[in-house]
Amino acid sequence: MGRAKKVVLAYSGGVDTSVCIPYLKHEWGVEEVITFAADLGQGDELDPIRLKALDAGASQSLVGDLIEPFVEQFALPAIRANALYEGRYPLSTALARPLIARQLVEVAREVGADAVAHGCTGKGNDQVRFDLAIAALAPDLKVLTPAREWSMSREEAIAYGERCGIPAPVSKKSPYSIDLNLLGRSIEAGPLEDLMVAPPEEVFAMTSSIDAAPSQAQDIEISFEAGNPVAIDGVRLDSVGLIKEANRLAGRHGFGRLDIIENRVVGIKSREIYETPGLLLLIRAHQELESLTLAADVLRMKRQLEMQWAELVYQGLWFSPLKDALDGFMDRTQTYVNGLVRIRLQKGNAMVIGRSSDTNSLYISEMATYGSEDNFDHRAAEGFIYIWGLPSRLWAAARRG
Amino acid sequence: MGRAKKVVLAYSGGVDTSVCIPYLKHEWGVEEVITFAADLGQGDELDPIRLKALDAGASQSLVGDLIEPFVEQFALPAIRANALYEGRYPLSTALARPLIARQLVEVAREVGADAVAHGCTGKGNDQVRFDLAIAALAPDLKVLTPAREWSMSREEAIAYGERCGIPAPVSKKSPYSIDLNLLGRSIEAGPLEDLMVAPPEEVFAMTSSIDAAPSQAQDIEISFEAGNPVAIDGVRLDSVGLIKEANRLAGRHGFGRLDIIENRVVGIKSREIYETPGLLLLIRAHQELESLTLAADVLRMKRQLEMQWAELVYQGLWFSPLKDALDGFMDRTQTYVNGLVRIRLQKGNAMVIGRSSDTNSLYISEMATYGSEDNFDHRAAEGFIYIWGLPSRLWAAARRG
Amino acid sequence: MGRAKKVVLAYSGGVDTSVCIPYLKHEWGVEEVITFAADLGQGDELDPIRLKALDAGASQSLVGDLIEPFVEQFALPAIRANALYEGRYPLSTALARPLIARQLVEVAREVGADAVAHGCTGKGNDQVRFDLAIAALAPDLKVLTPAREWSMSREEAIAYGERCGIPAPVSKKSPYSIDLNLLGRSIEAGPLEDLMVAPPEEVFAMTSSIDAAPSQAQDIEISFEAGNPVAIDGVRLDSVGLIKEANRLAGRHGFGRLDIIENRVVGIKSREIYETPGLLLLIRAHQELESLTLAADVLRMKRQLEMQWAELVYQGLWFSPLKDALDGFMDRTQTYVNGLVRIRLQKGNAMVIGRSSDTNSLYISEMATYGSEDNFDHRAAEGFIYIWGLPSRLWAAARRG
Amino acid sequence: MGRAKKVVLAYSGGVDTSVCIPYLKHEWGVEEVITFAADLGQGDELDPIRLKALDAGASQSLVGDLIEPFVEQFALPAIRANALYEGRYPLSTALARPLIARQLVEVAREVGADAVAHGCTGKGNDQVRFDLAIAALAPDLKVLTPAREWSMSREEAIAYGERCGIPAPVSKKSPYSIDLNLLGRSIEAGPLEDLMVAPPEEVFAMTSSIDAAPSQAQDIEISFEAGNPVAIDGVRLDSVGLIKEANRLAGRHGFGRLDIIENRVVGIKSREIYETPGLLLLIRAHQELESLTLAADVLRMKRQLEMQWAELVYQGLWFSPLKDALDGFMDRTQTYVNGLVRIRLQKGNAMVIGRSSDTNSLYISEMATYGSEDNFDHRAAEGFIYIWGLPSRLWAAARRG
Repeated sequence: MGRAKKVVLAYSGGVDTSVCIPYLKHEWGVEEVITFAADLGQGDELDPIRLKALDAGASQSLVGDLIEPFVEQFALPAIRANALYEGRYPLSTALARPLIARQLVEVAREVGADAVAHGCTGKGNDQVRFDLAIAALAPDLKVLTPAREWSMSREEAIAYGERCGIPAPVSKKSPYSIDLNLLGRSIEAGPLEDLMVAPPEEVFAMTSSIDAAPSQAQDIEISFEAGNPVAIDGVRLDSVGLIKEANRLAGRHGFGRLDIIENRVVGIKSREIYETPGLLLLIRAHQELESLTLAADVLRMKRQLEMQWAELVYQGLWFSPLKDALDGFMDRTQTYVNGLVRIRLQKGNAMVIGRSSDTNSLYISEMATYGSEDNFDHRAAEGFIYIWGLPSRLWAAARRG
Repeated sequence: MGRAKKVVLAYSGGVDTSVCIPYLKHEWGVEEVITFAADLGQGDELDPIRLKALDAGASQSLVGDLIEPFVEQFALPAIRANALYEGRYPLSTALARPLIARQLVEVAREVGADAVAHGCTGKGNDQVRFDLAIAALAPDLKVLTPAREWSMSREEAIAYGERCGIPAPVSKKSPYSIDLNLLGRSIEAGPLEDLMVAPPEEVFAMTSSIDAAPSQAQDIEISFEAGNPVAIDGVRLDSVGLIKEANRLAGRHGFGRLDIIENRVVGIKSREIYETPGLLLLIRAHQELESLTLAADVLRMKRQLEMQWAELVYQGLWFSPLKDALDGFMDRTQTYVNGLVRIRLQKGNAMVIGRSSDTNSLYISEMATYGSEDNFDHRAAEGFIYIWGLPSRLWAAARRG
Repeated sequence: MGRAKKVVLAYSGGVDTSVCIPYLKHEWGVEEVITFAADLGQGDELDPIRLKALDAGASQSLVGDLIEPFVEQFALPAIRANALYEGRYPLSTALARPLIARQLVEVAREVGADAVAHGCTGKGNDQVRFDLAIAALAPDLKVLTPAREWSMSREEAIAYGERCGIPAPVSKKSPYSIDLNLLGRSIEAGPLEDLMVAPPEEVFAMTSSIDAAPSQAQDIEISFEAGNPVAIDGVRLDSVGLIKEANRLAGRHGFGRLDIIENRVVGIKSREIYETPGLLLLIRAHQELESLTLAADVLRMKRQLEMQWAELVYQGLWFSPLKDALDGFMDRTQTYVNGLVRIRLQKGNAMVIGRSSDTNSLYISEMATYGSEDNFDHRAAEGFIYIWGLPSRLWAAARRG
Repeated sequence: MGRAKKVVLAYSGGVDTSVCIPYLKHEWGVEEVITFAADLGQGDELDPIRLKALDAGASQSLVGDLIEPFVEQFALPAIRANALYEGRYPLSTALARPLIARQLVEVAREVGADAVAHGCTGKGNDQVRFDLAIAALAPDLKVLTPAREWSMSREEAIAYGERCGIPAPVSKKSPYSIDLNLLGRSIEAGPLEDLMVAPPEEVFAMTSSIDAAPSQAQDIEISFEAGNPVAIDGVRLDSVGLIKEANRLAGRHGFGRLDIIENRVVGIKSREIYETPGLLLLIRAHQELESLTLAADVLRMKRQLEMQWAELVYQGLWFSPLKDALDGFMDRTQTYVNGLVRIRLQKGNAMVIGRSSDTNSLYISEMATYGSEDNFDHRAAEGFIYIWGLPSRLWAAARRG
């Protein structure tokens, strides 16, 4: 008997996941492979992909447009959490994985499959994200991971595919490993493994170079309601449209590139290039609006929990009780995050130059000013400093004996 | 009897601190006022300042060049701690206060004063920083704060000064409140109190605008030893020279401006404009080198403690047992931070494009690669994910009963 | 004109708050003083207290039974948060303050008062809790604090009261300062200010001494639903009844005394004796049930946020956006906390000896066992350790060059 | 060729590690097995153990007294860090593992071995601790783990041993799995896997039951210097002697038992019984002295880092850069921890009843008192509360519009 009878395979259309189809059937005795390919805004045509899977031996080839749930249920919470893994990477790829996993599980339930499968290898983060999301949603489902186990080189895999009727890729493979969706692109490997080699212009597709970006600055305004971006320059947009517009604007001005050393879940450092223009722009604007509308201690605690949130999502724990509890914290804070932020885009920069909140601003100019309209009790400062400094004073006194 | 007999006053040469001299003597019965003015790289001539104090009635007027200790003992630790208050402000002004306070205390000890004084008002952060530093270093010394108590408007203070022979300022006062030193400039108040007004170009002095910055990118390399920057483009510089060169380079390319809403110690939000080109550049480079040379868990914990460090320093607790203990943590991590970072400066941007460490790199390209020279045990991933995901799986199973 | 026209005063019936009545009227020109006394289970008769206030000059004397909201809205959340200030003090007194403050504000609204008042002095925590709660609920209401400002010694205050017709206390005052309510008793001052003096038996009232406690152990079972205690030994009790029964059981066996050095809000250390038998017992049982039903990472994070929660409540920030957001976190975790805990009470000890959860246990004995019914993939450990230890190995290798 | 040529095996004298000797030689082709057995105060005779190893086929059988380094280098740092894993377990077993691992590595270097080995199975924590410590100290050394891989049941292992001339254990095996050393005993498995079964009296050896403990209370004083316990009742003891005396005193009075659900490194919950009388007593006393001698903010941060410290040690990361950096923090705080703590031992309780520090007390009774010798500026409280409550007030005002 094989490892499973009926398997739902996460399918991208590439040669690697295509080879998984015959491999699962011939090597692991799977009777039926059903593929699922998701549209997450990566810009591929789904119809050819659908056919490719059938050609490779899939018994059914399903495709689904997941763009809206991707934005609504994954990108917006990340913006509200200002989620930046290790303070920098906005999780553009990581956010897609639990959604695909959830969809695999749903399809498996519908078609009565006893396993799901994915084509991730054993050194990346995505295998962890798939495996853990599936374990949390369907601890009873088997997870098959042919590419993690087959120990074929890429050339051998292509050759194996050719023997099973899967045509070898016509164009020479890019030296880079690239993942993309509506939120951004991740580029790694190849020449970038030399940490002193700057990323060449050719790896970027969503953002203009600084050289090519317009000289002229462009000021834009992003409006938020309960922490969600809802309008750009006063024009309300649905959330998918808003991300697209944010991508267009930031990308045009060359904002949103990252070149970082990152700590993978599996304990190693890797060098990653990202471009996530819209997502980074919206997070920056959101952070600024929070600095106006949230109290200092809330900001402080939220910053700590944001780190934790981003780590959990990076590490594949989207569906987990800790993530859920952190969302409980985040949600309570976001009711106050209403208002708009003005940003100047120019030559790779996105500088905040203005912010306002009609209903939730905690900035009282009469408090902050040093002018005559002063509203603050100056003498209170003395009492405050006396008590605020008391521990220091007692400590200093104790030290001198 | 007056509030004190002999007072050492922190002196800037401005009309406000000048008025403090006769005020302390005539209103509070101080017998002798000795002024101390510090050179922290703000670019003022000290000799005229020295004379001004004598003219205003000081019995002695002392000046001191504190640039080197400022950089060595305050700026370098801040770089090693990647200190950014609320994730953004590199403490350029805040770092100067404990140094001046320490100097005031030392002078007071030398001249046998029974009090020190400063001219801070009651709404800012600096009063807290002075008062707390003095309390920690000399809990027995009185601290006199005439400007916090006199409740004169600025015009009234000038008039009071004129009656005591202190000439009114000739030029019309800038609408902004500005503080500066070698590390940067802080600009607040005036038109900036309207949060939707972008800072006008005239408030900046250390950084070029993006428009005026050269189109041509410039790649530079910053070298670190034990977390301290020691060379730029391979040229070793003493620490003061290095900060100056970093200021020049970053400033020329328009990098290092901030426009933020910040939470003051005294519980209110204020809007602050900063330009701190060199300091921000060095912190960015230092962060990058740490991402290469420190383990993931060290980075994670250090990021949390960095927040705490920056908060303490912002809030005036430089001389405190918690700050000291945090330094104990920081110091142990910095032995590993050796290497260099390559940064591309262009049009307001400082993009890291390369990093290396001969002795401490934790990046092993054979580990990270997906190519054939692969050195990582793929099958370990399975075992890892099994155990890493076990709590999720058990939780999911418990949830479904 | 006086400081206020109509004031609602928090009233205890003691001489100190009684003196506040004439003081507010005669010294501060208040026209009308309305008192409010709360029953929080402290065991005082409210009727005599009501009359005392009228005798002292109150125009109205209100009393209210707040025991149920005290337990439901304040004690239960504290149990769910395992709230122990500085890891030890279960906030028995601190939890009462925001409730009284809320009631004062409600009464003030009803009677159209323009101020509220309390009799706290300037060194304790309760002044902060009252002032902050009122500021958060009614930033427009004035808060009058006669005892903080009048600078009379206790003897002078009694004499002042006698001149206004308030009889001096008949019994000699206890050397201790004591606060009590259903949740516990706080004892401080007097001989206890010598930190080497053990608290004498006479200061305790809710708990038996170890000597006097029965030799015989008593095993009890406490049941929880969604984190709330609902039954003892299988008998469902309303929340007030449950606290009382927990007090009785733990008190009988001498469990629930504390003798600690604590950091007050106002920057000083004080020595406090508490007895909070029921509350401590319930928190201990609740912690244990969480250790069975919550995942390791949730426990870890919750422990950190519990510290923060307890600190906020201790410091008077019950009504604050950060407290609210933390509750968002807590609430999401508590759905899983269902089951029971068996505790052995004996001679001052409350030892957990059993715990179970039909619906939410994350303990799988087949996982933990080393026996033959073993269900755990032993070989996974190897892969896990390989990856878990990879950063250490890389770091060690880098260190050796 | 075998898995290694010359192996140093951690040896306990038990049948399980004895079987490892022939297994390594016959199944894995190891040429030479050298055993190392450590005296950590567990009370076993080392000489018979030494001979057993030779009988089982070891080419050399080494033993070493590690009690002093165990206490000095492992127990004392744990006391200074108040190390309690998950707030409860004082790491008595966990602390021994890195020491044994370090010794294995040292022996391996001396005898020129190319591998070390231990007999841990695949579900516990100790395998992780050994493997990680060895990886950090000697990333080049192989680690052989026969018991993790052989998949023999205990009975099969005994039978295998008999075939190799290792006598089967004469006495019936205890149903419990027990580890012990000078610091305490860990008991798990067997009937304890039923979480509602109270630990029977027979599992305890270092502590008296409450019933059997003397009725009479005993007050003791523990003195600390720089955070280390140095004397009991005024009698200076070397550190080993002090731990022994603390064990004797606390054990006699029945203090130091734990019955907890604990989260293992490998992702599962297990139920553990510990008795660690001396260690828990010393940590409690140390915590108390810190509450007197450390400032509030230091205590707060230290408590967080203590959790982290305990977690790292529990998880096998004793030799790691994060542990080292945390020690940097801890060390700086301990200079202030000088003084003594008085504790009342009675019937399972260890109640602090007094504490003092001649040189480092931060308790100033004139500050804390409410009496007439009052030294605290009452009016400062007002200013403090004004500013401390400002964010709440601004937030409340913003909320009401």
